[in-house]
Amino acid sequence: VTGSESPLTYRDAGVDVDAADRFVAAIAPLVRATHTEGVVGHPSRFAGLIRADVGGMGDPLIAATCDGVGTKVLLARSEGDFEALGRDLVAMNVNDLLPVGARPILFLDYLAVGRLDSERLVQVVRGAAAACREAGCALLGGETAEMPDLYRPGEFDLAGFAVGVVDGERLPDPASAGPGDAVVALSSTGVHANGLSLARRALFERAGFELDDVIPVLDATLGATLLTPTAIYVDDALGLMDAVAVKAAAHVTGGGLLGRAGAMLSGGLTVRIDPDTYARPPIFDLIASAGDVGDDEMAATFNMGLGFLGVVSAGDAAAAEEMGWLHVGEVVTGEPRVDLGYARR
Amino acid sequence: VTGSESPLTYRDAGVDVDAADRFVAAIAPLVRATHTEGVVGHPSRFAGLIRADVGGMGDPLIAATCDGVGTKVLLARSEGDFEALGRDLVAMNVNDLLPVGARPILFLDYLAVGRLDSERLVQVVRGAAAACREAGCALLGGETAEMPDLYRPGEFDLAGFAVGVVDGERLPDPASAGPGDAVVALSSTGVHANGLSLARRALFERAGFELDDVIPVLDATLGATLLTPTAIYVDDALGLMDAVAVKAAAHVTGGGLLGRAGAMLSGGLTVRIDPDTYARPPIFDLIASAGDVGDDEMAATFNMGLGFLGVVSAGDAAAAEEMGWLHVGEVVTGEPRVDLGYARR
Repeated sequence: VTGSESPLTYRDAGVDVDAADRFVAAIAPLVRATHTEGVVGHPSRFAGLIRADVGGMGDPLIAATCDGVGTKVLLARSEGDFEALGRDLVAMNVNDLLPVGARPILFLDYLAVGRLDSERLVQVVRGAAAACREAGCALLGGETAEMPDLYRPGEFDLAGFAVGVVDGERLPDPASAGPGDAVVALSSTGVHANGLSLARRALFERAGFELDDVIPVLDATLGATLLTPTAIYVDDALGLMDAVAVKAAAHVTGGGLLGRAGAMLSGGLTVRIDPDTYARPPIFDLIASAGDVGDDEMAATFNMGLGFLGVVSAGDAAAAEEMGWLHVGEVVTGEPRVDLGYARR
Repeated sequence: VTGSESPLTYRDAGVDVDAADRFVAAIAPLVRATHTEGVVGHPSRFAGLIRADVGGMGDPLIAATCDGVGTKVLLARSEGDFEALGRDLVAMNVNDLLPVGARPILFLDYLAVGRLDSERLVQVVRGAAAACREAGCALLGGETAEMPDLYRPGEFDLAGFAVGVVDGERLPDPASAGPGDAVVALSSTGVHANGLSLARRALFERAGFELDDVIPVLDATLGATLLTPTAIYVDDALGLMDAVAVKAAAHVTGGGLLGRAGAMLSGGLTVRIDPDTYARPPIFDLIASAGDVGDDEMAATFNMGLGFLGVVSAGDAAAAEEMGWLHVGEVVTGEPRVDLGYARR
C-alpha cells in the first residue's frame, strides 16, 4: 500500500510527543507551587487527588464549573499577554464558584493548540498558576492537546474547570431577599472575558483601531486595556459571606450586567442599579461609540464595570462598604427586568 | 465614528444568544436524566452542586481529570457520529479516574464551536448524558462557547472534566507489585480517542481510503470503525478493585500501550504482555500497513486492543478472569520498558 514512502510516525502526523514531554517538565515547578496542603501524590498520573478541607461543615457539597476565555485568545501576542490569559482562565472559573459561596480547591486547564508552542503555553500556565495561588486552589492537572488539523499554527483555545466546597447549610438563599435590600458590587477590571467578539468587531472592524493604538481616554494601548485579566473575587466574596448574610450573588459574565443581575432574583423582585454610584471604565463607552452599540445591547453583553454582585440587607450595606464593596443599588419589586438607567454619556 | 452603518449587536458579531438559550432548553431533559441522588439544585446557575457519597470512607479524597477526544471530532458527519463523540468524551474522562480507584460522581463538558449547530450539539450531549448514566455520574454542567472567529463553520472541539471520590486508605499501591504478579486487561473497542492524527494520515492520505469505504477485514465502514466510542470501564474496574487487591492500574490513552503499561510500575519492574492472549482488532494492523508504521510507533501511539490494565497477585488472576478480564501477561524485573512482543502479522 505504501510504495516507497518512508514509515509514518506520530510526529509526521504533526504530534510531537517529545515537545509535549518537555512542556510538561517546564511547567512542573509552576504547578507544584500551587499545591495546597490537601494535595495527595500518587504514581498514577491519570487524575489529580486532593483531600478537601470540609471540617466543621454540616453538609459538605462539591461545586463544579467550566468556562473558557472566548475569543480573547485572538488578541494575545506578547509573553505578558499569554500570562494574562492564563490568569483570566482561572478567574473566570473560580469566580463562578462564588455565587453559591463555594471555596475553590482545585483547577484544571485544557489547552488546545495547533502546534505546541512551548514558550507561549508556559506563559499561559505561569499566569494560571499565579491565579490559582491567589485563589487558594491547586492547579491539580490538565490536558494539552496538539491538534494540527483542527487549529492553524498559532491558533489555540483555552478552557478551565474549577471545583470548590461549600456547606449546604450556608448556601445563599435568593428567596430570602426582599424590597429594600441593598445591591453591593465589586468593580471589574474591564471587559474581563465576555463580549470580545462584539468588542473586536466594533473597535477593529468598524472604527479601524489597532491593538497598539494608544487611546488617550484609556491612558493605555487598546490591546493592554482589552487584555487586562479578569479580577479574582474569591477573598472579597467569601469574606463578605463570612461577615454578613449574602442573600444572592452573581458573577457578571455571559449575558452581561443586564442578564446576570436580572437572573439573580425571582418572584417579582428585581434590582435597580444606579450608574452614578461607580466609575464605569471608559473602554465600554469606547466600544459603544465605535460600534454604535445600543445601551441595552451593551448591558446585555458586557459587565459595564461591575464584575460581581451581591444582595444583602440594607443594614449590612455599610459593613460591605467597609470591606471594599460598592453600594450600587437596591432590590425593588417589578417585572424581572433590570433598569440600569444608562444614558449614553 | 460609525457613519451610516447600523448599530452593531452581539448577533452581528456572530454570537446568537437566543440560539444558545434554545440549545440549553433542548438539552435540559437529557441533563436532568443524569442527575443522581446527590445533585443539589440552586437558583444560581454558575456552578453545579453535588453531595458526594463518601460514607464509610476513612479518608475521602477528590479525584479530578480533564481530557478531550482529540482530532476524532474531524471524522464525525452523521447524527450517530456526534452522539458517539459525546460518549467518547465522557469515557475518556471517567476512565482516567479509575487507576486510583475513584468512583465518578460528576462530569462537565466544554463544547467550542464556530457556529452553534444545535442539532449536532444536542446529539453530542445526548451521547454524553447516556454515558454519564452508564458511568453513574451526573452531567452537572458545562460550557458551550460560540466563537466564529476561532472555529470555522462546522468546526468544533470537545473537552471534558470528571470528578470522583476515593478512600485514601484504599488507593492502589504500585510499590506492592512484584515479579510474577499477573497483568490483567479489558479489551478496547478500537482506537478509542488516541492516535487519530496518525490514523487519518495513514489511512486517508497515504492509502487513499475514504470514510465510507467498507473494509472486508473490518466488516464495516472505516468511518464506523474509527468512530466506535471508547469503552466505559467504570463497573469492570471498580468491580475488580472491590473484589481483589489491584496493585496498579492504567487507562491506555496517550502514549499507547507501550507508554501506559511502561509507566504503571517502577523500581526495576516492568510488564510483559503476550500478544497471543487476546484478539487485536484488525483496525490496528490496517493502520500499520497503510502508513508503514513501525511496531514500536504503533504501540507507543495506540492501545493495540487493550483499553485498561491492572496488576493483581497471580493468585487473583483467575478471579479477574471470571469477572471478564483478560489475563494478558505478567510483571517481570528489567529495565522500565515494555516488550510487547509484536511482530507484524
